[in-house]
Amino acid sequence: MTSPPTIDAARFLDRLRALAGVGRDAQGRLTRLAASDADRAGRDAVAGWMREAGLEVRVDRIGNLLGLWRPEGAQGDPVMIGSHIDTVVDAGTYDGCVGVLAGLAVVEALREAGGRPAHPLAVAAFTNEEGVRYAPDMLGSLVYAGGLAAEAALATVGVDGTVLGEELSRIGYAGPHAPGFLRPRAYVELHVEQGPVLEREGTAIGAVAAVQGISWQEVTIEGAANHAGTTPMALRRDAGVAAARVVTWLRARARAGNGRSVATVGRLRLEPEAINVIPARAVFTVDLRDPDAGRLAALEADLAERLDQVARAEDVAVTVRRLARFDPVAFDPGLVRAIEAAATRRGLSVRRMISGAGHDAQMMARLCPAAMIFVPSAGGISHSPHEHTSEAELVAGATVLLDVVRRLSGPPEEPAE
Amino acid sequence: MTSPPTIDAARFLDRLRALAGVGRDAQGRLTRLAASDADRAGRDAVAGWMREAGLEVRVDRIGNLLGLWRPEGAQGDPVMIGSHIDTVVDAGTYDGCVGVLAGLAVVEALREAGGRPAHPLAVAAFTNEEGVRYAPDMLGSLVYAGGLAAEAALATVGVDGTVLGEELSRIGYAGPHAPGFLRPRAYVELHVEQGPVLEREGTAIGAVAAVQGISWQEVTIEGAANHAGTTPMALRRDAGVAAARVVTWLRARARAGNGRSVATVGRLRLEPEAINVIPARAVFTVDLRDPDAGRLAALEADLAERLDQVARAEDVAVTVRRLARFDPVAFDPGLVRAIEAAATRRGLSVRRMISGAGHDAQMMARLCPAAMIFVPSAGGISHSPHEHTSEAELVAGATVLLDVVRRLSGPPEEPAE
Repeated sequence: MTSPPTIDAARFLDRLRALAGVGRDAQGRLTRLAASDADRAGRDAVAGWMREAGLEVRVDRIGNLLGLWRPEGAQGDPVMIGSHIDTVVDAGTYDGCVGVLAGLAVVEALREAGGRPAHPLAVAAFTNEEGVRYAPDMLGSLVYAGGLAAEAALATVGVDGTVLGEELSRIGYAGPHAPGFLRPRAYVELHVEQGPVLEREGTAIGAVAAVQGISWQEVTIEGAANHAGTTPMALRRDAGVAAARVVTWLRARARAGNGRSVATVGRLRLEPEAINVIPARAVFTVDLRDPDAGRLAALEADLAERLDQVARAEDVAVTVRRLARFDPVAFDPGLVRAIEAAATRRGLSVRRMISGAGHDAQMMARLCPAAMIFVPSAGGISHSPHEHTSEAELVAGATVLLDVVRRLSGPPEEPAE
Repeated sequence: MTSPPTIDAARFLDRLRALAGVGRDAQGRLTRLAASDADRAGRDAVAGWMREAGLEVRVDRIGNLLGLWRPEGAQGDPVMIGSHIDTVVDAGTYDGCVGVLAGLAVVEALREAGGRPAHPLAVAAFTNEEGVRYAPDMLGSLVYAGGLAAEAALATVGVDGTVLGEELSRIGYAGPHAPGFLRPRAYVELHVEQGPVLEREGTAIGAVAAVQGISWQEVTIEGAANHAGTTPMALRRDAGVAAARVVTWLRARARAGNGRSVATVGRLRLEPEAINVIPARAVFTVDLRDPDAGRLAALEADLAERLDQVARAEDVAVTVRRLARFDPVAFDPGLVRAIEAAATRRGLSVRRMISGAGHDAQMMARLCPAAMIFVPSAGGISHSPHEHTSEAELVAGATVLLDVVRRLSGPPEEPAE
């Protein structure tokens, strides 16, 4: 006996709101950094919902949280649906969480419809996708996909001096399973676009065909501290001025491209950080992205050359530490077409697009056919408390996810619709 | 019975080394911020030496530490010698401390020579001269000179969120005396130059005729946080880029002047401070100085205009908070001549000069005739652990201070030399 599976929108959205309340500070800012106390509370909530939904909860060594449904008679590797629940500082409430909770809603919809999938289903919440506390970003899925050894990842030292492995143990999410212990037959991730394209075009669904390449570096500039009042301008070795020259150049360089390159300096610290002392040291991050591997490499090469120029011109020493580097990733064409077809069958407008942000799906693409579904972000705003996607858009995305997963998990009988 | 007074060089230098050991962190960096635990330890040491020297120790409401010697028969207002013992972050060991400890050495030299000064003598260590923790700088002497009400100064909130009055109480240096309770008949301060002039010329002593004007501002730029990977360059409102444009412009503007203007951005913080988030907010300080009041005002006006331009060009909001503003100060011409004469009598080369740094003496100049004696700074380096002045140069400076103070305090009998 089967009935057409349907997303329980109220339950899905209630959980999204509940998770959005986990990790607020006294000022109401949402910050749920990977492996923090707030992350533990968020994980506890998600694990609880997984159990309520009848899933077996598993945690691997790098803290990836998985909920497995093995329906009677299901065989072979599972279809995996996932994303992450860690956030940036002062975050919005959709990024990552939508994918995890929609995955849960899809499995529940299939269970509650009484269908008998041919293959198991798994919902995943990967560790440290944002990379704000530990680099690289997408760390949990990278380890899961075999791109980084668990030992190395667990030894990662965070921006706050903590060690990822110690923090995972502390919050009770250093699990026993080897990353990759469930090898997915396919991976699908629903996510907010985090860019302006879908909203501007009035398109409901993005079928993500690729993810742009990412390069993260940390630049340290060493000049000389000296008195702000007595040191003539010509005699200064000001690390702050040198850093500012790189920041302004980088913006101009990214703008001068074909409109696809982006460059961001999100962190910048001066030392000794006193109003009347010339900065001896500046440490800042550089985030470079481009959908084209060659253009990304050219951006990096130009930055290196510019750093050399500034070092000579300002008489400062420059060192660069690579934090993350991922080439552009193409998703599985068949899966992208399946997303387009599912949206069209639901009467939803759909377009192919390239993701500007990095996602766990690009790591999972190393293991199995993978693709992503995007829903609109109001104003293109993300990584901000102003991040917003309407309830209807979220449910539409979850419904397309449901249809794609249902096809992938191979229901033996297609109910008449 | 009198003998020619002489600085006890060994005792003066020993104390300077001892004070340099107070406030070191685990890495050996010296940081003795105003009203901190380290400052308390430094104050305790200085107060102890004052008592050893037979001085009456007094603390006023703003924490200024004074040691008073009232020789038998001395009358009228005291001659005051002073400076400060608070430091910047990762500081050198001379700035301020030399003036306080040389003052103590001068009083001891006069006492131990058995002279009978006509007027009392006082040694002062003023609170929060550096202004790193609380703005404005020279706060203690400003309050002492009546330029700022003690109540307002005590309510100052520091960069670490502490309140100055609470911190002074906590460390036991919120005294009972009204600031200004000892009205000096004259004020003399020995200080390291903190600039390269004396060393470059091979001159032993600077007779400081004036102090350049200082303007401190804190600039806050508000843009919009957004995703570093998905937000096209053209759609960004990046507070960090806007701040960097101000930093590079400011350097160019100061350089374009007549070589006397200096401009420094010593603090700069981005928020939310994440590698993959466009900065929503940048907060930075601007330190502008010029010996000429008109040129300083022009610098400030040009900065304000530039901030307006950047706000429009980058679609960001800019607000400015004034932290400190002091016009250039001219010292007492008679006292400056007395310093030159004393140096010359000791066979030391001397030149008139303008101070690039702000000093307590410029505040005390509001109360009484004031002037300063400079000794060379190796390489012009200051506000840095590499700050250095040789022992011979320090003792030469203290000796000139002794001669000037001896004349000011009016010994009834000049011993035959």
